[in-house]
Parts: sequence; C-alpha cells; structure tokens
Amino acid sequence: MNLRLYNARILTMERDREIFPGEIWIKNEKIAYVAPKEEIDREWKGQEMPRIDWDLEIDCQDNLLMPGFKDAHTHSGMTLLRSLADGLPTGRWLKEKVFPVEERLTQEDIYYLTKLAVLEYLSGGITSIFDMYLKPEAAAEACIDLGMRCVLVSGLNDFTSSVSQVEEEYLKWNRRNPLISYQIGFHGEYTSSPGLLAELASLVHHYRAPVYTHLAETAGEVKECRERTGLTPAMYLDSLGLFDFGGGAYHCVHMTREDMEVFRRRRLYMITCPASNAKLASGVAPYRDFWDSRVGMAIGTDGPASNNALDMFREMFLVAALSNLREMDPASIDPLEVLRMATVNGAKAMRLGRADVLAKGKLADIVMLDMSQPNMQPEHNIPANLVYSGSKANVKMTVVGGRVLYHDGRFFVGEDPEGIYRQCRRVAGRVLQGI
Amino acid sequence: MNLRLYNARILTMERDREIFPGEIWIKNEKIAYVAPKEEIDREWKGQEMPRIDWDLEIDCQDNLLMPGFKDAHTHSGMTLLRSLADGLPTGRWLKEKVFPVEERLTQEDIYYLTKLAVLEYLSGGITSIFDMYLKPEAAAEACIDLGMRCVLVSGLNDFTSSVSQVEEEYLKWNRRNPLISYQIGFHGEYTSSPGLLAELASLVHHYRAPVYTHLAETAGEVKECRERTGLTPAMYLDSLGLFDFGGGAYHCVHMTREDMEVFRRRRLYMITCPASNAKLASGVAPYRDFWDSRVGMAIGTDGPASNNALDMFREMFLVAALSNLREMDPASIDPLEVLRMATVNGAKAMRLGRADVLAKGKLADIVMLDMSQPNMQPEHNIPANLVYSGSKANVKMTVVGGRVLYHDGRFFVGEDPEGIYRQCRRVAGRVLQGI
Repeated sequence: MNLRLYNARILTMERDREIFPGEIWIKNEKIAYVAPKEEIDREWKGQEMPRIDWDLEIDCQDNLLMPGFKDAHTHSGMTLLRSLADGLPTGRWLKEKVFPVEERLTQEDIYYLTKLAVLEYLSGGITSIFDMYLKPEAAAEACIDLGMRCVLVSGLNDFTSSVSQVEEEYLKWNRRNPLISYQIGFHGEYTSSPGLLAELASLVHHYRAPVYTHLAETAGEVKECRERTGLTPAMYLDSLGLFDFGGGAYHCVHMTREDMEVFRRRRLYMITCPASNAKLASGVAPYRDFWDSRVGMAIGTDGPASNNALDMFREMFLVAALSNLREMDPASIDPLEVLRMATVNGAKAMRLGRADVLAKGKLADIVMLDMSQPNMQPEHNIPANLVYSGSKANVKMTVVGGRVLYHDGRFFVGEDPEGIYRQCRRVAGRVLQGI
Repeated sequence: MNLRLYNARILTMERDREIFPGEIWIKNEKIAYVAPKEEIDREWKGQEMPRIDWDLEIDCQDNLLMPGFKDAHTHSGMTLLRSLADGLPTGRWLKEKVFPVEERLTQEDIYYLTKLAVLEYLSGGITSIFDMYLKPEAAAEACIDLGMRCVLVSGLNDFTSSVSQVEEEYLKWNRRNPLISYQIGFHGEYTSSPGLLAELASLVHHYRAPVYTHLAETAGEVKECRERTGLTPAMYLDSLGLFDFGGGAYHCVHMTREDMEVFRRRRLYMITCPASNAKLASGVAPYRDFWDSRVGMAIGTDGPASNNALDMFREMFLVAALSNLREMDPASIDPLEVLRMATVNGAKAMRLGRADVLAKGKLADIVMLDMSQPNMQPEHNIPANLVYSGSKANVKMTVVGGRVLYHDGRFFVGEDPEGIYRQCRRVAGRVLQGI
C-alpha cells in the first residue's frame, strides 16, 4: 500500500516549531519520505514528477500533518462504566459499581468495549494507546481487528493475575503482531504485596525490562505507603529494584523533589492524567517541578470511567491551564512542550520510539488537523492554537501504520460503529443487571 | 420559513432529565410545537399527517435536540489576539500587546474579527452571546449579517466611553433588530472612577435596568478595592445602588459569603469563565458556595485572548472538574446543573428568557448533537455524557431564530469562511505591524 499525502503543512516535531509546506510519502506501514515543497520544486523544476504507483493520493488542502497523539495511560475496557453513577463518592462507586461490573466481564465483553474506545481514540487523532486492563488478550485482539496500535501493560496485583502470567503475556505479545507490544506493569504499590513485588523485580531483572505502575495518584495513597514502609511509593518501589531498567508511572500528583530525583536518575517518565485527577479531586501534578527536575513527561486520558472523554486535546489544554493555576503563573508552560508531551514523549514513554516523529523510516502514525476551522484562526502561533484553542473537532484524518482509519467523520476500520455500539449495549444489558 | 426537525430525541431543559423521542416544528423564528412521538402517533394513528408547507424538513436520525448554548461572557473582537504572546506575564502582555493592538482597531476591523468569532460559536452549538467590547456597533452588525443572536453589554470605563454614549446605544440597540438586544454594563470597579459609577447609577435607576460588570476576577483586584473603599467590589458597587435592578457579574472567583448574599438578594447572576480563570491563573470560583447561597450561575468563555477557545463543552467540563478539585469531592456538582448553567441560566442571565428552553412560543435557538459518535456511548446518563465526555465535535447543527446556520461542518451564513479569514489576515497585517 503506497499512500501520498500532498499539499499539506507539516509539523514533524523533529525540529520543534518549524512548520513547512510539503508532502509525505508512505510505503506500507512506514514513512518513506517527508518532502518539503521547496525540495520537491527544486528537484523536479517544471518536469513531471516520477510516476509512482500510488494506491491512494490525498490532497491535504493546506491542512496540518503531525505525529498522531499517544494516549499514554488508558483502561479501554472501562467504556461500559462511562457516566455510570459519577455522582457517588469514590469508595462507594468502586465497591457498588466498578468492582461488581468488572467481576462479570468476560474476555469477549472487553473485546467489544475496547473496540468502542478505539473508535473514540481514532476520532480524536490518537494513534496509539498504553493500555492497562483485565484480560489484555481482549484489548490486543480488538486493536488488531480495527488496525489500532496498542502497547499493552500488565496491571499485576494481588487479586487478578500472577507474575508467571505476566511473563507469558510479555513473551507472546512482543512477537505476535506488529501493531501490538507489551510492557511489564503492576497496578500499584497499594494493591501489591511485598512478596509479589519481589517476584516481579526478579522478572524485570531477568528481562532487563522497564516497569510501569499507578503512582502517587492521591495524597492518601502516599500517606499510607509512608506509614507502611517509611518511604514514599516512588522511593519504596525504587528500593525494591523495580525501576532499575527504567519505565514510568501514571498520575504522579503527590511527589517530593526526592521522588523526582529517582525519576530523573532512572529515566522514568511521569505520565499525567489531568482530567481524571481533576474530576476525581486527586489534585494537580507539579509539572514545573518535574520540568525543573528534567523528568520526561507524557499524557494519558486514563479510563472512560474516571475522565470520561478519551480526548488528548482536552488533556493538553488541562496540562497548561492547571499548571498555570497551580503555579499562579499564566505562562507556566510552553505550549510546544505540551504538544511534545502528547506526541514524542508519549511514544518514548511507551517504548514506541519508531512512532515519535514524522521522518523517513518512522511508523506512519499521523494525524491531519483541519486548519480551516475558525478556532485555528488567526495563525500567529500554531502550536499555541493547537494546545489552547484546538479541539478533536479539528481532527480530519487519522492514519495508523499507513492505513487511513478515520477521515472526515467516517471510520474505515472494516466494520460499522453501530454494530460495535450494539454489542456494547448487549454487554451492558447482561452485566449491569441488578447493579 | 417553516422548518420541521423530525425523528429526534429532545431535551427541552424544561422538565430536566427527561429526554423523549419526537419532533420540533418551527415557524419563522419561533418554535410552533414540540411534539413527543407518542403524542403524534396517538393523534394521527395510522392516518397521514396533515400536509404542512414545510420549507425544509430535516431527519435528525435519532440525534439530540436541545437549547443552544448561551455563551454568557464574550469579547468577540479579540480573535485577533488569540495565541499572540500567551507566554508573557499578564502585565506586559496587556501593555505590550493588548492595549497597543486595541488602540489601532477600527470599527470595520472589529466587524470582521467578530465575524470570525461567530463562526466559532456556531461550530460549537452556541446560539447567543453576551458580548462586551469596544465599538458594540461593529459586533451588532457582524451578528446581524451572519444571523447570530447577540446581547451587547457596554464596557463603560474611564478611558473609552461615556454614560451618554451608553444611553444612546441602549435606546438604539434595544429596538433595532430582533437578533440584537443591549444591556448596561461597565468594565470593572478598578477601571471606573466613583464619579463615573455615580453617573451610571442614575442612568440605571432611570431605566430600572440591570447592570453587568467584571467582578472579583483576581485576588489583587479585591484587595485593592478593599484598600480603596473599605469594601469588597460586590459590596462597594451594591452600596452605590448599581445592582438595585439586578444584572450580574463576570468571573466572581474571589468572593465572600457576604458578597454572595448581595448576589442572592439582588438576584444577580454569577457568570463563570473557568478556562480563562485557570489559564490566566486567577483561581477557581467557589461554585458550591454559590449553589448553597442560591445564586444563579451561568457560563461564559471570556474572549479568545484569554481562553483561547470559544467552546462551551470545554467550559462545562471545567466547571465540573475544577469544582471537584476545589471542593476535594469527586461529585461536587450535578452534570444536569452544569448543563442548565450553560443554557437556561445563561439565557436568563442575559435577559433572553425567550430563548431558554425548547417550548411552544420560544425562540428557535436549537442545537443538534450527534449521538452516534463513540464519546456519547453508552447512554447510561446523557446529561453526564454531554458534560463529561461531550465535545464540540458532537455539534451537528446549530439553528438560530429558526435559521440553520451550521450543519455537518458547513456554515450557511451567506458568505464563505475563507473570505472572513482573509479579511482578518488583512486586519492583522495592518494592526500588528511593529507590535
């Protein structure tokens, strides 16, 4: 499959702020050529361009091509729980809704519920997700069937899985399908016994693998860990050797400077979920302190039960606005930096360096943004427009691995959205009975 | 013009949470009939419906019709300043960018810049705005020419206008065009001398008119007012008799319980601008305290220089999420209440009671939301979906005064958006020279 995207403006995210007119040539799943218009004009001055056998040529009409968004923290299968009793206090919501629902979910249920989430990702220009949920097999199959890129991460804990299961999945899903990879993770310090964590540390050392976990999401979690171990979660987990080969952590709202120093030294990514942390009243992450500590930052939406949208535009605005609020500084963070968090850093955090920027040889995971909508005018500063006034309504096309999966409001994923919704309604009808 | 919107689901906002299948009949600028499907079925059981001479019939395909959003605080002409040096600290940004630009703006400039904002409002389902800016004449003409509903409010201050000018505009724009009305306002306590405010109070008493102003946006503003007058801005302005006939205030971030008591007693609306207040690091309004004090709340985007999007979906999510953060309570506010703030209360705050809900005789200011997009699934709680996972991408159609102005991503405003963008680029080229 050869795809040509021409007549575009391109933000490669390689050379930062620079946006140039040009085109992108895609061969199979990779970018074959990122061509500035002036280079093309010089090369072929007046002559006809060489005839390449394009399967598809798309006139981008001066719209913007940039790397697809990397949603670096998701629980896709939780779509069933969206808007289900948001009004309850967290404890009751978990006990009365989330846990009983999750207990009933079959692998097939999660397969359909993940497909619903994938449609939402694509409609918002998200080209890969870092997904932690029950029965990762189901999420993998859903993503493969729709053409979505997914990095699975295990949510190991004391109740629903085992280290040997994680190892099995790790070996299987890192060689099975080019759209899927797998990283080792656990749910959180507070849901994992010291024995389980020690066992996991051995596995991690065996494979010299990075590790990911929920961390310091709430003040209560940090307090309880201190009481139990005498250390913050970051310090405690590091003391077990879990971060010896890097990785990252989700949320990171309540962090000390010492914790950040661990992150810097271990090259851990902090993966922030600003909408979820605000909606659930967990707090605002100290972005500026992380920045000062030279810790890489990426962004995730978290699951649809706690956010509830899967929309990186909303997250980007929130990173900037909440950081400003926290620092009491209307210019606490550069919008280009936020854009980098949502793309390049996300790719690096989930070990998808092959999909970080638009360049020859990189995976063709690309989003086209409609610059002809009024919220993108005037064009004093396009990255600032994207972060401060951008919307998923600007997403005109989403390309994953060289395949156009979403274009002009329509999905090209091999099946009808309504069919997926119907399956999800069927799941809801069964699972929610009596809950 | 007779318009029939059929095969819809309808949220009238009259009977709160109830959503029913049905259709809406529109005659000229008003709603002639809101018909639940079961009523139609009963009335015409099996017979053919009476033939009405519809000019246009739209199959809503089971999508949602609800009252259009009321953006209750805007400075539309500031589109030129979007993403123009967001990175500067507020003082320098005002002095080096905003004021020099505004000094150069002609009435014609503001006309085009307002048109740009109107396109953005329509693309986000906003059917009326409460607009305070220089040269209100220009905003009025822009809205009339595009078919937008606009309540002008004067931004009287010590530097750019006079009470007699306000009176002249008040008389003119409350009788000139059905799309336009005019309310009396002033910029703020800190930009208005006691003499000016006394003069304004006389005018207000003469017309027994409500009054609107920026109020308690920043902690500094409140502190300085206290130092100067011994009172908070709300108490001080009330002591001058300015609120004797109601009205409202924009922002209201830093408020005492006593201030709220003034609001309740005078039936003032607090009009919150959560995105602007976060981005500019002003703070988070105490929504729960206002609620407890029984003060009516509405929502505005503020101007594109300080927000920078004109998107009520973003504002609705922010009201809920920021309120949760502030109260440290993940269920601090009911999403239906937020939806009411963005529609019914907005209409009431700007004295547009004729456009508050969907009912016979009300103005046909309606938005159709696409429920077939994945972020609206599943449908456990539609108001919660709208507030927590909704997006302007769900806006399928915007109707103002019975005229379809936006449908399926296209504008029907009598001119091409690109022409408006071109005019705005021309304005930018001239005005920004050397700034």
